[in-house]
Amino acid sequence: MVNVAVLGYGTVGSGVVEVLSRNASVLCRNAGEEINLKYVLDLKEFPGTPIEKKVVHDFNIILNDSEVSVIVEVMGGVNPAYSFVKSALLQGKSVCTSNKELVAKHGAELLGIAKERNTNFFFEASVAGGIPIIRPLEQCITADEVLEVSGILNGTTNFILTKMEKEGASYSDVLAQAQSLGYAERNPEADVEGFDAGRKIAILSSIVSGQQVNFEDVYTEGITAVTAEDFAYAAKLGVTIKLVAKSCVTDTGMYVMVTPRMLRYGKPLASVHDVVNAVCVKGNMLGDVMFYGAGAGKLPTASAVVSDIVDAVRNRGHHVNNGWAQDKRDLIPIDEVENCFYVRMEGDASEKLPVLEELFGGVTLCDNVCEGEFAFVTGAIKEAEFAKAANSLKGIKNRIRIEL
Amino acid sequence: MVNVAVLGYGTVGSGVVEVLSRNASVLCRNAGEEINLKYVLDLKEFPGTPIEKKVVHDFNIILNDSEVSVIVEVMGGVNPAYSFVKSALLQGKSVCTSNKELVAKHGAELLGIAKERNTNFFFEASVAGGIPIIRPLEQCITADEVLEVSGILNGTTNFILTKMEKEGASYSDVLAQAQSLGYAERNPEADVEGFDAGRKIAILSSIVSGQQVNFEDVYTEGITAVTAEDFAYAAKLGVTIKLVAKSCVTDTGMYVMVTPRMLRYGKPLASVHDVVNAVCVKGNMLGDVMFYGAGAGKLPTASAVVSDIVDAVRNRGHHVNNGWAQDKRDLIPIDEVENCFYVRMEGDASEKLPVLEELFGGVTLCDNVCEGEFAFVTGAIKEAEFAKAANSLKGIKNRIRIEL
Repeated sequence: MVNVAVLGYGTVGSGVVEVLSRNASVLCRNAGEEINLKYVLDLKEFPGTPIEKKVVHDFNIILNDSEVSVIVEVMGGVNPAYSFVKSALLQGKSVCTSNKELVAKHGAELLGIAKERNTNFFFEASVAGGIPIIRPLEQCITADEVLEVSGILNGTTNFILTKMEKEGASYSDVLAQAQSLGYAERNPEADVEGFDAGRKIAILSSIVSGQQVNFEDVYTEGITAVTAEDFAYAAKLGVTIKLVAKSCVTDTGMYVMVTPRMLRYGKPLASVHDVVNAVCVKGNMLGDVMFYGAGAGKLPTASAVVSDIVDAVRNRGHHVNNGWAQDKRDLIPIDEVENCFYVRMEGDASEKLPVLEELFGGVTLCDNVCEGEFAFVTGAIKEAEFAKAANSLKGIKNRIRIEL
Repeated sequence: MVNVAVLGYGTVGSGVVEVLSRNASVLCRNAGEEINLKYVLDLKEFPGTPIEKKVVHDFNIILNDSEVSVIVEVMGGVNPAYSFVKSALLQGKSVCTSNKELVAKHGAELLGIAKERNTNFFFEASVAGGIPIIRPLEQCITADEVLEVSGILNGTTNFILTKMEKEGASYSDVLAQAQSLGYAERNPEADVEGFDAGRKIAILSSIVSGQQVNFEDVYTEGITAVTAEDFAYAAKLGVTIKLVAKSCVTDTGMYVMVTPRMLRYGKPLASVHDVVNAVCVKGNMLGDVMFYGAGAGKLPTASAVVSDIVDAVRNRGHHVNNGWAQDKRDLIPIDEVENCFYVRMEGDASEKLPVLEELFGGVTLCDNVCEGEFAFVTGAIKEAEFAKAANSLKGIKNRIRIEL
């Protein structure tokens, strides 16, 4: 029998407790022994619930109980999660977490401690909720140079963009709806500005590169500037608009960015709708593989956390190496990255065409959607060159990177 | 350094050799040591190629070389693959194979030997080519009761159905095109009758259930009866037609079947086109997760085989248990399974409606496509009851299971 403690009885924590209870027999079969919930750490009491007698308020009770070998951290936030997890690993306990902030910031260090103490630090649920992606990158896609990881890693923004596309609605209207449905926070910044997706792609990039990719180095651009008009032009172009987190290895190095992207229908990520998440992995031999499913939600996320518990039980006394080292990975400056751009601007297309062609080389004009404005698509151009050319133009209303 | 021998230098075998050579450094990093190709077993010589000096014609040279610890079987067919693999495992060597026939027929026995000898028998490439699916089922989705596995597991038939849908073409025309492009065999039976997909879903069902699911017990129905008219009705119904391999756990047991299915657009498998494969896994906590990618092709398949080699190296001296035991899993007779059916038949809809409603309960008529015939959709009905009712009707041209 293995004793487990859960830190935090919020949405994910209560989901973990539910999965441990409802799937006890399958877990016993898969882990090779019974998994017993011994403690739940929370500030509150939960009288009248099945965990009533398991609740403790002092982490040290858990830390100092040598019977507890696996700790589940699902409190969120960096503090006190970081100090709890660190001291648990130092004690030789395994830790499983869904906490992307913690993993993005301290993952490499915590993995280092786990290695030193011959125990494990697992975080499958920190990226893309229930979708297996961390473990497949570490254990399955091992014969390839991974050239690119791109994903729809934030359900809130994908819900908003899907609804804007379907209903022709404005960003602010749909955001308000999403907030009233509970799909978006009252302060939606972390989602809509791409920070949440940025932390997740930083984690995936670290695993792929085997070095520490800092979230602070990830270029992020949110969806707040995407308009109903942009979706109208997108329809003409046969593309959709998604918030894509992308990590790419080129001849000159790796870049990581989170930005809205227009994606041609038919590309795998283009058909990922609503709150669903998906991750595409491009290997130099494998080509494109996509992993698709529930990126959030109590039970799917809890399922991923509990699969980490199973792995922790299977690998007691054996550190599973994932190669994510502490040395920092330098990224290519975004200025050097090449993209094609969709640009929507004021004025008359035929009048502006000569100056556009001079600035961007060949451009493709879109069929018109709104009076007094037009849109065009550039060829591949370095971000810095695009920015310089765009700055010299007056009347640009929006620009979005595009993959046709 | 680990020495590897490859049995069979056909498409996959030469792909494995290519991946081992082109990705040598990433493989060394992921496996923890250098992987050296020592032998290639083939009937032919390959003068002037890099493997020229590695070719042997006698399997015993490989079997008796104690330096060889991993054997890659990519010859295909049950014999002599079975005896080679069995004797290699009995010698304590690890074996990696892409051979679905071998795995479907002898997987449980070979896994048993691998366990006994504390070595490994891996077969990631035997299902869905380059897509990681065997290892995710064994190592990642471990916190769930798996309720259903459904997949598009055969690229040839998916290519044919995609082309029929896109071009409104007939089955026989598209098959001829697929044959001339090399996507379909001259004798296409194994693909178009669903036997290939049937072997693959038997393997996945065995892994999910932990028992032996025999291919012979899988109900298979091919795509040869699907017509351009069916696709025309499908368009009216907002569905597509795919050859779906499905393994499902119900209250009364498990059933496994390969049949054409009409799938509503929006369902994940409905947007899997051309030669792409995909597998959906439904967990009781996780909901639906989909794995999507190249289901065949030299390098994607070879990549999966080589990822098995990496795992074999990582786990030398340690049997990785996947829980697939040798006891046979009894399946629910297909007669007991409930499905909804699309039915296309001769005659006039309004005239036939009363008798249809008497036979099937409520039915939904489709908008008409062809003169002198019509189509309708039944509610959920047991296969045996449907068959009995359908047999009592005259003029049925086709029926396809449908998921709206």
